[in-house]
Amino acid sequence: MPIVADIIAVGTELLLGEVVNSNAAWLSQQLSALGIHVYYHHTVGDNVGRIHRLLDTILNREQDRPHVLLFSGGLGPTPDDLTVDALAKYFQVPLIHDADSERHIRQLFYQRGITSLSDNNLKQALRPEAAQVVPNPMGTAPGIWWHTPKQVYLATFPGVPRELKAMWPTVQTHLQDVLAAAEPGKPYLRLYTRYLHFFGIGESKIAEQVNDLFSSENPTVAPYVDKAHVKLRVACMALNESDAARLLDPLEDDIIQRLSTYYLTTSTEPFQLEAWVGSMLRAAGQTVAVAESCTGGLISHRLTNVSGSSSFTLLNVVTYSNMAKVNELHVPADIILSHGAVSVPVVLAMARGIRKKAKSTYGIGISGVAGPLGGTDQKPVGLAYVAISGPNNQELVQEVRVNPRTEREDVKYAFSQHVLVLLARQLQQSLQTTTLHSQKTVN
Amino acid sequence: MPIVADIIAVGTELLLGEVVNSNAAWLSQQLSALGIHVYYHHTVGDNVGRIHRLLDTILNREQDRPHVLLFSGGLGPTPDDLTVDALAKYFQVPLIHDADSERHIRQLFYQRGITSLSDNNLKQALRPEAAQVVPNPMGTAPGIWWHTPKQVYLATFPGVPRELKAMWPTVQTHLQDVLAAAEPGKPYLRLYTRYLHFFGIGESKIAEQVNDLFSSENPTVAPYVDKAHVKLRVACMALNESDAARLLDPLEDDIIQRLSTYYLTTSTEPFQLEAWVGSMLRAAGQTVAVAESCTGGLISHRLTNVSGSSSFTLLNVVTYSNMAKVNELHVPADIILSHGAVSVPVVLAMARGIRKKAKSTYGIGISGVAGPLGGTDQKPVGLAYVAISGPNNQELVQEVRVNPRTEREDVKYAFSQHVLVLLARQLQQSLQTTTLHSQKTVN
Repeated sequence: MPIVADIIAVGTELLLGEVVNSNAAWLSQQLSALGIHVYYHHTVGDNVGRIHRLLDTILNREQDRPHVLLFSGGLGPTPDDLTVDALAKYFQVPLIHDADSERHIRQLFYQRGITSLSDNNLKQALRPEAAQVVPNPMGTAPGIWWHTPKQVYLATFPGVPRELKAMWPTVQTHLQDVLAAAEPGKPYLRLYTRYLHFFGIGESKIAEQVNDLFSSENPTVAPYVDKAHVKLRVACMALNESDAARLLDPLEDDIIQRLSTYYLTTSTEPFQLEAWVGSMLRAAGQTVAVAESCTGGLISHRLTNVSGSSSFTLLNVVTYSNMAKVNELHVPADIILSHGAVSVPVVLAMARGIRKKAKSTYGIGISGVAGPLGGTDQKPVGLAYVAISGPNNQELVQEVRVNPRTEREDVKYAFSQHVLVLLARQLQQSLQTTTLHSQKTVN
Repeated sequence: MPIVADIIAVGTELLLGEVVNSNAAWLSQQLSALGIHVYYHHTVGDNVGRIHRLLDTILNREQDRPHVLLFSGGLGPTPDDLTVDALAKYFQVPLIHDADSERHIRQLFYQRGITSLSDNNLKQALRPEAAQVVPNPMGTAPGIWWHTPKQVYLATFPGVPRELKAMWPTVQTHLQDVLAAAEPGKPYLRLYTRYLHFFGIGESKIAEQVNDLFSSENPTVAPYVDKAHVKLRVACMALNESDAARLLDPLEDDIIQRLSTYYLTTSTEPFQLEAWVGSMLRAAGQTVAVAESCTGGLISHRLTNVSGSSSFTLLNVVTYSNMAKVNELHVPADIILSHGAVSVPVVLAMARGIRKKAKSTYGIGISGVAGPLGGTDQKPVGLAYVAISGPNNQELVQEVRVNPRTEREDVKYAFSQHVLVLLARQLQQSLQTTTLHSQKTVN
């Protein structure tokens, strides 16, 4: 019998729209990974009556089967923070002071130079008598783990995502015990996950190609949505790594064969393209320099989001004006005049210019129309040209067209995504060549 | 009698945690602005039974009073998309084909070169008999507005935030009619809103300073959370502009006086700092050029997110390596050696260098430690120096310290925020001076 869960966010600020509830999605991912089915997310205000009414609804629905409730929010020190109090009242058990929690709270305040604590602060050390504390390594509010009557397993977290994430491993361990006890004698299976990355194809097109695999139960295949590139998550429950590989390897091969044109790589964690590009640049000991026009610095920003990017980033320029393209990158003024700033000859000259200037392995040039203004019939919003200039006179040029009806920032992001993929494919080839060479040397 | 609302997101992908539900917060903000109280957010999977169960719960709770239900998600073309079907079944009314919607869908597909539509595509043109269509200017899935039995006013939106936002004005108009009808004879009051922007002070500190104003009912004061700067929203219900001004002006003055050190400006829409800076640069007819190190292109990216930024952006550089700082910006190598790259003399030289190179009104230099690596005792993660070089030998330098425990991307964002604020204050002064001068000329 699968275990079912509800995730409940408590906080009037959520109902006013002042905070986006990202905790529900994050907790859902963790529960899914454990094989626990999430049936509903709920958000309720700081109001005991409404919290009780919600609990009534959920418990009436889930009579007689093990059920998990994860609460986030409402653990703070103000009178508005009433999650634990509402739960104790609902299950009619007394609240007691937890000595360890109080010590932890006093210590945190002491570190901040505060020695006299208010009743509100000490309220955070309260827990229902039968509940255990879930320590909070990042803040003052501890959570609870509580096996209540009616087969309800219940955990509380603060609303701050950083604290919630830091407390999750404790709750995960409790949940694994619950799962193990639910089917005693059965060996405990772990979840093994791989992410297959694709580019240049939409989610619905990918779904069409692998539609028959979506109904598979172990391993499972599911699209994994992220900003501007598509991933398929293949996952299985298995006893160990080699059992998992037996299930996942043939499936991965099958999918890659069906979608080979669009396939980029496989990873065990979902990643951003810039992190992947950065790791390949480091592995190859190479550097890149970017000359941007329409993307306005976004490619440089994304590459330098990778920690340690100083090993592969030296210099990037944003030559927004034509004058800057001429002065900084030595793009010949006459080709701008004859072809326009958004053209193959100009981005090639930009790529060569920045490569020479930065003395980098690769030089990249991009120029396009990010919109919403500035589009023409010949050069509409959403059109860009990209060039890469590399060692041994390797040069690559690509025309990019993205949906002109998306917003300026999304157009810029889509352009940057194309540039990173073009560079990634170049680096993949370069690394393969290197591997072949070194193998040759070894043989 | 206040009107109460529930917001319901439909989609199994939400319960798997693959998408964060940002629509609930956005819709909550819109409803709050209309004076409609949101009682719960719910998320439910693509499952007719569970959608019906949820409707049972909500309608049992809200017997005999006008109630608003906003649905997002489940309007797509796949068999999983079943929101409208589930609603029609629940209220036991037939679905009919809407001719206008079908024409709109055919037209969109025609633009994409597709002339033969599947049944799935045409399914999106279905609506319950008594419901009205809410046109979707951004996509194929229209929404519905429906006054069902049991005093339920119901609207559906697609899950794509861009489409949902574009469709909101139609639903807002319907809701305003409902509000007007709820209290007939009473003159219809509109909501007037101002946003007061602050920087350099946290939300909780601001709350302490204006705590006594939060309980006011008309006008209202509420903190408005955004990335890295704090806004207070002051709002009132009023008959017209001048009535609103009578309520809002003294309140705004009072708040600005209490928080004058941190006050930036007031606007009628919430905005990003880069849009404000861009509009001031345009108003002053001035330009800016940025030399970035630790922010890696983010400031350039943010400035060029403003549509029409080519009028004030000419050239920006990301001089990540010391060599690039020397070669591109003529930062003297000996001051990098003696003071380090993260130092006042270096950012000043960067600001002067980029200003000279770009021939811009202002030059900006920034260098710091974005982390997580690279921090030392003297120059810890979260430390940066910023310089602005302007006309008439005006030069400004600032030391910036942000929380070193935040992630690299957040540190970069906080740095960029400090730079934009420093530039904004400079532009405010410059514009005030200009205004004084032109007034003098007129007199």
